[in-house]
Amino acid sequence: MKLLDGGRAPNPRRVRVFLAEKGIEIPIEPIDMSAMEHKGETVTEHNVLQRLPVLILDDGTALTESVAICRYFEELHPQPPLMGAGALDKARVEMWQRRMEMHLLLLVANVFRHAHPAMATWEVPQIKEFSDANRPKVLKTLIWLNDELKNRPFIAGERYTIADITAMIALDFCKPARLEIPQELEQLLDWYERVKSRPSSSA
Amino acid sequence: MKLLDGGRAPNPRRVRVFLAEKGIEIPIEPIDMSAMEHKGETVTEHNVLQRLPVLILDDGTALTESVAICRYFEELHPQPPLMGAGALDKARVEMWQRRMEMHLLLLVANVFRHAHPAMATWEVPQIKEFSDANRPKVLKTLIWLNDELKNRPFIAGERYTIADITAMIALDFCKPARLEIPQELEQLLDWYERVKSRPSSSA
Repeated sequence: MKLLDGGRAPNPRRVRVFLAEKGIEIPIEPIDMSAMEHKGETVTEHNVLQRLPVLILDDGTALTESVAICRYFEELHPQPPLMGAGALDKARVEMWQRRMEMHLLLLVANVFRHAHPAMATWEVPQIKEFSDANRPKVLKTLIWLNDELKNRPFIAGERYTIADITAMIALDFCKPARLEIPQELEQLLDWYERVKSRPSSSA
Repeated sequence: MKLLDGGRAPNPRRVRVFLAEKGIEIPIEPIDMSAMEHKGETVTEHNVLQRLPVLILDDGTALTESVAICRYFEELHPQPPLMGAGALDKARVEMWQRRMEMHLLLLVANVFRHAHPAMATWEVPQIKEFSDANRPKVLKTLIWLNDELKNRPFIAGERYTIADITAMIALDFCKPARLEIPQELEQLLDWYERVKSRPSSSA
């Protein structure tokens, strides 16, 4: 088994943080996305979409999509549960993971990809107006999330889950996207400090 | 238990098709999205994001996000498996479900929401250039999917899964988005006929 990894990009990092939280170590093969190596033969052979990460199993089976790779490890190593335990909890974690993905990470990515000069060859065409349109939507999500975090320590409840991973990485992604997190969102910033202080955050 | 339902919109329909495939019947409360009823008190009380569908359990717990609601029923009623059986199969189905969502349904929705006159109050601001930018991306996905379907009857493999539901609904959504499915994509159109001929497709 090995993981074709994409370094600092959000999706590869989601899987690495997940594995660190699980205490799972697997061989990692770094792919230099800034050198466009993900468009090369090694990745394309296993993922025609040329995206990372890709998990390659011993029999050659390739799994892509960060959350699907996480699901694989969650099923094989259920402890500690990062995707919920029991029907309702699994559904609730998935709800929050999806909310963090569709209403936060995706929006921050839209801001970044459609405006940052380094993305000009990645996002074609770059549409500055679309980047700008996503900025207030990110802010709206952050304000809502700040309210939600008044009642509990982690995004999906009492326990750290994959929803916290997605949200932490989205907030980290605000910096290159040149999105500021307002200082008055104290609950959100407290939570952010809490998840960033975990050893997994440096994975 | 009851499901706050949103009629013909893609996400509410995903849950109804899923339930039909499972043979599960639950009370459904229709919410008229064209009359903007999802912005009203009933929905907002259970989902501050004002989106549908929302599953309300007997104790008042609300679950949102169509795939998370599907997960809840999959866990309670694993047969027939629509989200995979076993670690690898679950991961593979999730990979395909996400690919169909991020590389197909989301792109079709982008085309529709940023161009259709009926969406002018929903998607603010509407950016026609962004709609247009998504059109060739949809086509690229359809061509890729046509190739994939040369080797197997359903999106994720030998069995009908939630990935087929997402993809079928994305293809249905091409019509209001004014996206044509090229007639030469024979494997894709065969598959489309196959999934549309199932009783669940009318749910």
